[in-house]
Amino acid sequence: MVFVEEFEKVKPLPAKDYVRVSHYELKRFVSEVFIKLDVPVSDAKIVADNLVSADLKGIESHGVARLKRYIDGILNGVVKTKPKIRIIREGPVHVLVDGDYGLGQVVAYKVMQKIIEKAEKNFFGVAAVKKSNHFGIAGYYAELALKKDFIGVAMTNSRPLVAHTGALGRSIGTNPLAFAAPTRKEPPFLLDMATSIVPMGKIETYSRKGEKTPQGLAIDEEGKVTTDPGTIMEKGALLPLGGLGEKLGGHKGYGLSVMIDVLSGVLSGANWGLKVGPTQGPKPSNVGHFFAALNIEAFMPLNEFKDRMEQFKEELKSAKLHPEFERIWVHGEKSWLTRKTREKIGVPVYKKTMKVLKEVSEIVGVEFPF
Amino acid sequence: MVFVEEFEKVKPLPAKDYVRVSHYELKRFVSEVFIKLDVPVSDAKIVADNLVSADLKGIESHGVARLKRYIDGILNGVVKTKPKIRIIREGPVHVLVDGDYGLGQVVAYKVMQKIIEKAEKNFFGVAAVKKSNHFGIAGYYAELALKKDFIGVAMTNSRPLVAHTGALGRSIGTNPLAFAAPTRKEPPFLLDMATSIVPMGKIETYSRKGEKTPQGLAIDEEGKVTTDPGTIMEKGALLPLGGLGEKLGGHKGYGLSVMIDVLSGVLSGANWGLKVGPTQGPKPSNVGHFFAALNIEAFMPLNEFKDRMEQFKEELKSAKLHPEFERIWVHGEKSWLTRKTREKIGVPVYKKTMKVLKEVSEIVGVEFPF
Repeated sequence: MVFVEEFEKVKPLPAKDYVRVSHYELKRFVSEVFIKLDVPVSDAKIVADNLVSADLKGIESHGVARLKRYIDGILNGVVKTKPKIRIIREGPVHVLVDGDYGLGQVVAYKVMQKIIEKAEKNFFGVAAVKKSNHFGIAGYYAELALKKDFIGVAMTNSRPLVAHTGALGRSIGTNPLAFAAPTRKEPPFLLDMATSIVPMGKIETYSRKGEKTPQGLAIDEEGKVTTDPGTIMEKGALLPLGGLGEKLGGHKGYGLSVMIDVLSGVLSGANWGLKVGPTQGPKPSNVGHFFAALNIEAFMPLNEFKDRMEQFKEELKSAKLHPEFERIWVHGEKSWLTRKTREKIGVPVYKKTMKVLKEVSEIVGVEFPF
Repeated sequence: MVFVEEFEKVKPLPAKDYVRVSHYELKRFVSEVFIKLDVPVSDAKIVADNLVSADLKGIESHGVARLKRYIDGILNGVVKTKPKIRIIREGPVHVLVDGDYGLGQVVAYKVMQKIIEKAEKNFFGVAAVKKSNHFGIAGYYAELALKKDFIGVAMTNSRPLVAHTGALGRSIGTNPLAFAAPTRKEPPFLLDMATSIVPMGKIETYSRKGEKTPQGLAIDEEGKVTTDPGTIMEKGALLPLGGLGEKLGGHKGYGLSVMIDVLSGVLSGANWGLKVGPTQGPKPSNVGHFFAALNIEAFMPLNEFKDRMEQFKEELKSAKLHPEFERIWVHGEKSWLTRKTREKIGVPVYKKTMKVLKEVSEIVGVEFPF
């Protein structure tokens, strides 16, 4: 048995503000909510697994704290519980998919499975998706490719929350990119990043904890940098990776966001930029995604690749340490350790979030188990 | 005829420090240098076009100022003038290529042409390349796909110049990513970015001009942020996009750099990370690249895509202006306007650079025309 250190990416604080619950129970509750709303059992399990995975990994910004907005989308009639997901175009390595305004998690999961099959047969799988919804954490779909030891890529556009370089107000999405690659030993390499400095969910997290944000993440209505989560959430805008202006590369974060929207939104036939709506309505958000799966054997024996990846990871981790840091991390490690830890000691759920979950249970009419 | 405003991305300053030369003459000179060194005429023209394109576009960090290091690579015997570029593995949409230590520009150009052919037949083209060298600006290869109205992607690893998050010293490359997509009107969308805040060439540019760099781009030998180009170039390290530590997302720039190295270096069989050598030797650098070409018709009629792209560009450009900025740019515009301008008024070459070009002409034995 391999020893796994106890580690949480973000320590929940203070102790009086949260409770720990079993991830099994949390998933069961979330599934039941969706099932009660007429989502097929297997689809409900996908959404529950996606949301609780975010909490397990320490990405609380994308976890069950967001359950209500998906529920509201269904109740408002803009998110369909039984979508007719259709392949519109298809080739040996690609599909164009119409998600029929289903839950983003369900659409994305099924599309990713489809292109993984294509990568098994033809080395590559590529998909563009329209008429979908917010799909939760992008890394979840990139990781599906790892089950076959493939490289996985997932991107999505999202409603405008970021001010692009030179602009005032919300104009482009936080459009995340996820990239997963297998390694010899666990954890695999997993990059899962918003192209803004932080996603809005992170600002929501500061707000739930009653904290200020670090300086430089976001601007207020007039364009001034602000650290007040309330101001940012109400009328402010996030800044692209690299920050305000071009001095430290803000135009690069802006460019990455647009690149992801070109693939996810423009190319797929979905909405893009300003037109991408929120999950809750009043109109269907028409989010677009872009996915790829790459069978490593197209280029190199899998074992050789895994050994090379392991060596790369080791080199990165054993580099000379900067005096201001305690440890060097490789992408995927923190969330993997957090998951292993929380599978044992439970997922922390803030009491504020618990209240919302209780509200959801009452609205939908399922028993509240916590 | 369409009016094109006169614009230069970076104004050369002061006037006494540079001269303007015709890009035709500059290309002819660079070609002659390579031809004299036994590079086939058509290959020499590719390298010359790549280097002078960088100067035309205002990316002087990657232009003829770097000619000497390619020449040194050839003279030191680590860059081959007549490489046997070989396809090692091939499928309907992919190739794995051994560049036989040829000039990176020549290898990359030929591989990109190959996968564009694949995208014409099979909608997609993907290539991993090993045993190559520094290939100049990445955008040059992504743009080749635009000639067929395809989306083009180009990545490469590069010698370690960046300190990854938590590390001290140079450990990962500035590993650039380029992404090009066609639009209804010129210029097309072109993102061409190092995954560090700036490439080392930009630091060299500050040095040539005798200027300090902005704060936050790089650290010195002990890990302290420095603005002295000499310190950075000698023993310092660049910082990943997002800066030092994780506070403003430095781990994201680090992750993008590693992702590009996984595709370009690990997957291709090339060197990666610390092992990637400089162009000048003493050992072959064994740089790796990764390319993709995507035929838009796989997903959408080309005309529809171009109209949607044009609309997206217009929306971005007409957003409400931030009070601290004068104009909103879309990626590709600045370099395109600079090219159009410099094709008319000439390419500025700093006198320091001119001296190096003269030196090269003497070493190689070609006439110096300037």
